[in-house]
Amino acid sequence: MSGITRVRCDQLAPALGDVEGNSDLVVASVERALADRVDVLVLPELATSGYVFRDRAEALRAAITTTDPLFSRIQRLLDGTDTVVVFGFAERQRERVRNSVAVVDASGVRAVYRKTHLWDRETLVFDAGDDAPPVVDTVHGRIGVLVCYDMEFPEMPRMLALAGADLIAVPTNWPVGEHPERDRVAEVIAAQATARGNGVFIACCDRAGTERGQDWNEASVVVDQFGWVVAEAPRGAGSTAVTADVFPTLARDKSTSPHNDWLGDRRPALYRREVPRA
Amino acid sequence: MSGITRVRCDQLAPALGDVEGNSDLVVASVERALADRVDVLVLPELATSGYVFRDRAEALRAAITTTDPLFSRIQRLLDGTDTVVVFGFAERQRERVRNSVAVVDASGVRAVYRKTHLWDRETLVFDAGDDAPPVVDTVHGRIGVLVCYDMEFPEMPRMLALAGADLIAVPTNWPVGEHPERDRVAEVIAAQATARGNGVFIACCDRAGTERGQDWNEASVVVDQFGWVVAEAPRGAGSTAVTADVFPTLARDKSTSPHNDWLGDRRPALYRREVPRA
Repeated sequence: MSGITRVRCDQLAPALGDVEGNSDLVVASVERALADRVDVLVLPELATSGYVFRDRAEALRAAITTTDPLFSRIQRLLDGTDTVVVFGFAERQRERVRNSVAVVDASGVRAVYRKTHLWDRETLVFDAGDDAPPVVDTVHGRIGVLVCYDMEFPEMPRMLALAGADLIAVPTNWPVGEHPERDRVAEVIAAQATARGNGVFIACCDRAGTERGQDWNEASVVVDQFGWVVAEAPRGAGSTAVTADVFPTLARDKSTSPHNDWLGDRRPALYRREVPRA
Repeated sequence: MSGITRVRCDQLAPALGDVEGNSDLVVASVERALADRVDVLVLPELATSGYVFRDRAEALRAAITTTDPLFSRIQRLLDGTDTVVVFGFAERQRERVRNSVAVVDASGVRAVYRKTHLWDRETLVFDAGDDAPPVVDTVHGRIGVLVCYDMEFPEMPRMLALAGADLIAVPTNWPVGEHPERDRVAEVIAAQATARGNGVFIACCDRAGTERGQDWNEASVVVDQFGWVVAEAPRGAGSTAVTADVFPTLARDKSTSPHNDWLGDRRPALYRREVPRA
């Protein structure tokens, strides 16, 4: 059972196609995290490859497998620690190219998840995964994994919450979007509602660094189980780390009143009924 | 097909148990709405009865059926208009007492929905409904109905969006809650994320008026299909009306990029798969 857990989203700025340089960025981030006693480090979607690929062939050239030396470099750094690293990478899987996330700890690669909901031109570049998102049991609580656009489908975080996730780690690349001054960016609002509605912690790690003219929200955020922001990237901060100390296992208490429970109050049979039309 | 549609949430302050007085409040609100050319009027949850019942017996005394004269009074007022009224009432249904919402237009009662997710002490007072929420086809678009806590279960608005709802009307009684100054109240954040994630308009009508020491967020809000607030009750305004002109049928375009669609991108088979545990 976890106690206080230091969660960090390190909003890196990978360079498109520079796998070697990006791998060094990832390793340096892990080193900083260990120096700062971070327990759960979340890095951006496609941290090793960059994002704005022209086509599938270009993405394949920047794709790696989990036998890539980067994974063993991270594992070696984590040796003797309880720290968990969640990071995005372009993955070559036989003939396919995936938008994947790995969960790595001192024991090695604990899980790989392949993004199942592809955003915009990703549909031309990547092969969508077909497997459900995983929940990884760690000393810091049970960590569920989604990638960016996946989180916008409430079915996805719901699956993870029902499978016992305490904290959902969401590597993202959020293309910059307009929003009213009064409001946070739309994706953060989605994260807040998702966290609250499932009673889970959520850590979204966005990225920085303009890529082929594309900018990002740079809005990395850690949200508590009530849906409130506990740490966030200052607007326009670029490549920066967002760190929060939280208690992920508090997510196991889903009670919201003496008579209510976020998950217990669900009515699955009702959700399968037909909507009456008048 | 609807054009511009004037949507109003009239944040009334019903008095506990005063069915006659509250019915007059509702009627007066309908009259004001007609004078102001409102097309869709949403009123609070339990507008005819008040909310903070001590027990079931007290709620039953304030419960009415759809044969109550109030319904024909509203229908007569709406005669010759296209205006639709959505309001909450405590309903006596044989031996049961429901937290219900009626959708009424010039043709009469189009639909009655009985709240299926009961909040806190409502579980001691009301019988939860067992039927799916309805979608009512009107000249102002297809109107789905939920009641307050129902909206917090993403399965519910999803059902309505999949059934073609353009606008979801949500009579609510939101008990006052704390929130960071930077953020809107949690329920409004939920409405924003729900509207955006389903590409639908949402109109939540909260209430005013302290009842047995209970205050309310008084945070009635109309949210557009992108999740942004287009009209909201000023903080602390008490009993006030919130009005917005919107185009509900814009909700039928679910495209979010040249390659994406909020509903089309769903992967229902995936959502039924087992979450892998590591």
